[in-house]
Amino acid sequence: MRYDFGSDNTAGMAPSALRALNAANAGFMRAYGADDVTARAAELIRERLDADAEVRFVFSGTAANAIALSMLAWPFEAVLAHQAAHVCTDETGAPGFFGQGLGLIGLPGFSGKIDPRALAAVLEEPEVGHRQPPAALSLTQSTEYGAVYTAEELRHLIEPVKARGYGVHLDGARLANAAAAGFDLKDIARLGVDVLVLGGAKAGGLCTEALVLFDKSLVRRLDNRLKQAGQTASKARFLAAPLLGLLESGEWEGGAAHANLMAQRLAAGVATRSPFILAHPVEANAVFVRMPARAHQALNDAGWACYRFDDGSVRFVCSWATTEEAVDELIDAVAALS
Amino acid sequence: MRYDFGSDNTAGMAPSALRALNAANAGFMRAYGADDVTARAAELIRERLDADAEVRFVFSGTAANAIALSMLAWPFEAVLAHQAAHVCTDETGAPGFFGQGLGLIGLPGFSGKIDPRALAAVLEEPEVGHRQPPAALSLTQSTEYGAVYTAEELRHLIEPVKARGYGVHLDGARLANAAAAGFDLKDIARLGVDVLVLGGAKAGGLCTEALVLFDKSLVRRLDNRLKQAGQTASKARFLAAPLLGLLESGEWEGGAAHANLMAQRLAAGVATRSPFILAHPVEANAVFVRMPARAHQALNDAGWACYRFDDGSVRFVCSWATTEEAVDELIDAVAALS
Amino acid sequence: MRYDFGSDNTAGMAPSALRALNAANAGFMRAYGADDVTARAAELIRERLDADAEVRFVFSGTAANAIALSMLAWPFEAVLAHQAAHVCTDETGAPGFFGQGLGLIGLPGFSGKIDPRALAAVLEEPEVGHRQPPAALSLTQSTEYGAVYTAEELRHLIEPVKARGYGVHLDGARLANAAAAGFDLKDIARLGVDVLVLGGAKAGGLCTEALVLFDKSLVRRLDNRLKQAGQTASKARFLAAPLLGLLESGEWEGGAAHANLMAQRLAAGVATRSPFILAHPVEANAVFVRMPARAHQALNDAGWACYRFDDGSVRFVCSWATTEEAVDELIDAVAALS
Amino acid sequence: MRYDFGSDNTAGMAPSALRALNAANAGFMRAYGADDVTARAAELIRERLDADAEVRFVFSGTAANAIALSMLAWPFEAVLAHQAAHVCTDETGAPGFFGQGLGLIGLPGFSGKIDPRALAAVLEEPEVGHRQPPAALSLTQSTEYGAVYTAEELRHLIEPVKARGYGVHLDGARLANAAAAGFDLKDIARLGVDVLVLGGAKAGGLCTEALVLFDKSLVRRLDNRLKQAGQTASKARFLAAPLLGLLESGEWEGGAAHANLMAQRLAAGVATRSPFILAHPVEANAVFVRMPARAHQALNDAGWACYRFDDGSVRFVCSWATTEEAVDELIDAVAALS
Repeated sequence: MRYDFGSDNTAGMAPSALRALNAANAGFMRAYGADDVTARAAELIRERLDADAEVRFVFSGTAANAIALSMLAWPFEAVLAHQAAHVCTDETGAPGFFGQGLGLIGLPGFSGKIDPRALAAVLEEPEVGHRQPPAALSLTQSTEYGAVYTAEELRHLIEPVKARGYGVHLDGARLANAAAAGFDLKDIARLGVDVLVLGGAKAGGLCTEALVLFDKSLVRRLDNRLKQAGQTASKARFLAAPLLGLLESGEWEGGAAHANLMAQRLAAGVATRSPFILAHPVEANAVFVRMPARAHQALNDAGWACYRFDDGSVRFVCSWATTEEAVDELIDAVAALS
Repeated sequence: MRYDFGSDNTAGMAPSALRALNAANAGFMRAYGADDVTARAAELIRERLDADAEVRFVFSGTAANAIALSMLAWPFEAVLAHQAAHVCTDETGAPGFFGQGLGLIGLPGFSGKIDPRALAAVLEEPEVGHRQPPAALSLTQSTEYGAVYTAEELRHLIEPVKARGYGVHLDGARLANAAAAGFDLKDIARLGVDVLVLGGAKAGGLCTEALVLFDKSLVRRLDNRLKQAGQTASKARFLAAPLLGLLESGEWEGGAAHANLMAQRLAAGVATRSPFILAHPVEANAVFVRMPARAHQALNDAGWACYRFDDGSVRFVCSWATTEEAVDELIDAVAALS
Repeated sequence: MRYDFGSDNTAGMAPSALRALNAANAGFMRAYGADDVTARAAELIRERLDADAEVRFVFSGTAANAIALSMLAWPFEAVLAHQAAHVCTDETGAPGFFGQGLGLIGLPGFSGKIDPRALAAVLEEPEVGHRQPPAALSLTQSTEYGAVYTAEELRHLIEPVKARGYGVHLDGARLANAAAAGFDLKDIARLGVDVLVLGGAKAGGLCTEALVLFDKSLVRRLDNRLKQAGQTASKARFLAAPLLGLLESGEWEGGAAHANLMAQRLAAGVATRSPFILAHPVEANAVFVRMPARAHQALNDAGWACYRFDDGSVRFVCSWATTEEAVDELIDAVAALS
Repeated sequence: MRYDFGSDNTAGMAPSALRALNAANAGFMRAYGADDVTARAAELIRERLDADAEVRFVFSGTAANAIALSMLAWPFEAVLAHQAAHVCTDETGAPGFFGQGLGLIGLPGFSGKIDPRALAAVLEEPEVGHRQPPAALSLTQSTEYGAVYTAEELRHLIEPVKARGYGVHLDGARLANAAAAGFDLKDIARLGVDVLVLGGAKAGGLCTEALVLFDKSLVRRLDNRLKQAGQTASKARFLAAPLLGLLESGEWEGGAAHANLMAQRLAAGVATRSPFILAHPVEANAVFVRMPARAHQALNDAGWACYRFDDGSVRFVCSWATTEEAVDELIDAVAALS
């Protein structure tokens, strides 16, 4: 089976990430994040975001997201998110586990973008004691369906939420792909996001993601929080190093730009050479194709790992490691299904 | 500041771990543990333990321990552990977080080994509804104070616990050091341990530890449990690879044997060349020295990171990376304090 | 404002409940449930159910349900329930709080009864690590929309669930109304329910509900579990006494039969004298009427407390205390709206 | 067996509590606390405390305390309390359950009063990421060992805690006994307590306790919090009514004054007529007697329920319902043991 397009986490680390990891291995360093590698990686992230944020490196996106949400909502409150968001559908209820029952309210919207009217409708519902009222908004950039919010679209979602004093979380597992698609990272702080999860894994790193706190009131005893949640690395340098490498080399954005380009190539090939329709605009590194179950099965049988999503379409994801040859082979395979 | 002896997690990865990590980087692999690297590392662990156990690789020892305990005790129950055990004193209450209030009952005993009479006394207490009765025993091998249980000692602790139907967890963060000191790994399953956390980080790996389930009844939906707890790696190969390298090369035991030897050298030097007393028998890779606050401070001032423990002694830890030169320099520094 | 029909918890205690509470007040009794009143009430419940169950009296239905579900599903699992079930919509996420993130999967079906095909579809879904798979079924008898399951209907829901080894919970907040409508209480154990919450509050008692465990494997350390969850009464006699009075006098069923009769009277009056349509069959003590917002508002303005439900209809609930005069006045008021 | 002295929760409701409960039974009332009985009881409590506090009536002291602590400390933090406090020893770890792992740090001190030097020592410890640092102080008035803090003593404990921005909880399960012993209830708000649990059960009520929030910042979505925690009564009037009766009649203080007087009588009799020593000053309604196990057993055998405490002494508790005759009989029985 070929896993090239199964997800963007089936690739290894990008060259600069691996180099930085190897470089960080030398000598003794303080444990638990008090090392120089960690400090430099955090500084580079602050530069990219143009903001004075607190940065921590945690082991997984699921944990990063769940911890972030548990900072923004009590167990008797809920977080608003797109109904297809990773926190809603792919994290085995981690927000409820880390948040001791914290609720999620799923909102509709095309291509993984929250419909502002649906958001407004929920915000306007009267509060009652027997339901979990919203306390925060969770956004995903780029979205689960490969779309990229404009700053203006984000503003229309964030403003009414902040106006009520609620918090805002941004799941940036594929933030590099959004950045490569033209999204300005400096808008994140400007728009009022309180907690960002900046993705490393899908950008060519290890599994590590950066937890970025713009709202400094959330920082109190953060290290105790992370330690208790099993997200403090003793050998912290190894969490920070791959991201350091990617950011220093520019491969964080460069690899994502390549992935986006490969997705465009794949989309164009599918659109022109197969009868299948694209289910979503291809703005980042994923291509969703409407194809019958038989065609999907045939692709799997031919050795291509790819998955059907909740909207019924089949997803193909590109990464820094996707080659033109692989894309062209896949296009041939899809075209041959017709 | 020199961190050589501050802890055994201030060293980098051992050569075979780093090599295996680099080797695992090539190509696309299935995510979430369904890869060959993970399978081979799990197989090697089963071989070492001579048992048909279920193995998962998780990000941190704190998470591994806390998840293990949450499998063995309900929130309204408690786990028996040495009062100096890592789960009691160094994990920010992680067992209570993962176990939703699960209690810990600290037991006394010399050098981190649980006193069997103290254990018996607690086991014989009548149960009452308003306290958290014990449901499991947590052991640490080698102990927090650098001692190594014999199989016979473990048997005397495990048997009365299993006789009541309670579970047994073994925190093996420094299991390699115990093995290098003569402890037979095959005794773990034979003695009735239900869940083992086999240490990778302190043995020269990444932060990863292996969660080893001998009790197959605990395996049901294990992957859901780990995913929800933020302990499932997308790029799982990188969690397994360093341990695979260490186990294939024998460096897992070899590095620990070296660390133990360095601890012996350090202990002998301190005992013969300084007026300070060793606080605990040196059976694994740690040396605890009784020294006045002034002497400890002077060492720190001289650039040696080392920490005072709850028993009042100062700890020095050796690792696979500790050099004879560093040991001798430290001995000189300690001797110079007198 | 008149609260006669706002809910069946706006009435006080029925005469036999109040008498029993007063009678239980005399003298000193052992605390925490080791008293005779508690024992006798538990015995009467076992007789009604014709089963050797373990019985505890807890303070509220929300707690009773949430604790029951936390016995049947781990945090990384989910409970199947009707999407309009009280546990899904009216308990502020209590199952997730008591169950540390335990999930709920809402199922459709007419009038609050789960559609067996929808249940089958969920049961047949392949399990994946990143979602919370079902571990239990929660049923409500009578349903939130005033319908009563037949034993045969329950069997079709329970059998496929038990066949997978999953547990079954029955929310019997209005079980008395179901019993008065002809449902045989002895079927509960026969059908394989594991945990029943037998309602006291809506049947004319205090807030107390009885937690009834048919599955004895769930009983272990139950008193510790309840104490930790804040559901152990020191003066336990007062929790049991009202239910004891209701069950000894037969008013538990008698009051429910009266409530059901009043609901029939109301339904008949609305159907014949107003243009409004009944939204659900009236099988227990609630009447749901489809009426425009203006009509609902007019009723509220005229002093009748009544609430719009998620299906858009307006609910009127009868209790042991509802009088014919009140029903007739309400019918007049509804008729006058046309 | 006679339960007169086993605890102060073995008595029934005092006359005015029972009368108020009966009076509250008439007619239909809004559910969930929006009724007049609840409003009046809350108002009386505010008057007693001379403070503009938010008041809720919850089912049990264990829940009230645990919820209060979960408001004041995050899971990765700890609450400071006397090591013999009810929250530490008698609530099955409820603070950890409601607070998802929230820690407790037990402090020493005579007769249940926290030693200010022990408190200071903990407050001065440096914070580290791998432990749960203190975030709040929990006090008990009167204490578990029947002592009563003076306002001055409380000030010395509260001031250093508030100076660090930490919260203060007061467990007032036996606050009425402290008040009857001369403690001025108006000092509670003046001293800076943030959350008070005002006891009803032991003062002659039902199991209900009042949760009193002086810190209004904690009130946000309080009803959602209580509902989720299973502590919202549908028939809320029955929770408030007994306390309303006790407070309107003055029996809340009067019954406690009687209980205290009976404890004085018992203490005097034991001191003068038996060889046994009082273990603690008798300032409220409990008498602790140092007696050998054989004497304790003989008392139990003679039909007197009484319990040995963690300090080794045997406790006898008086309530509003304790009679002089019973006290004298008990004194005779104790005297006869010699």
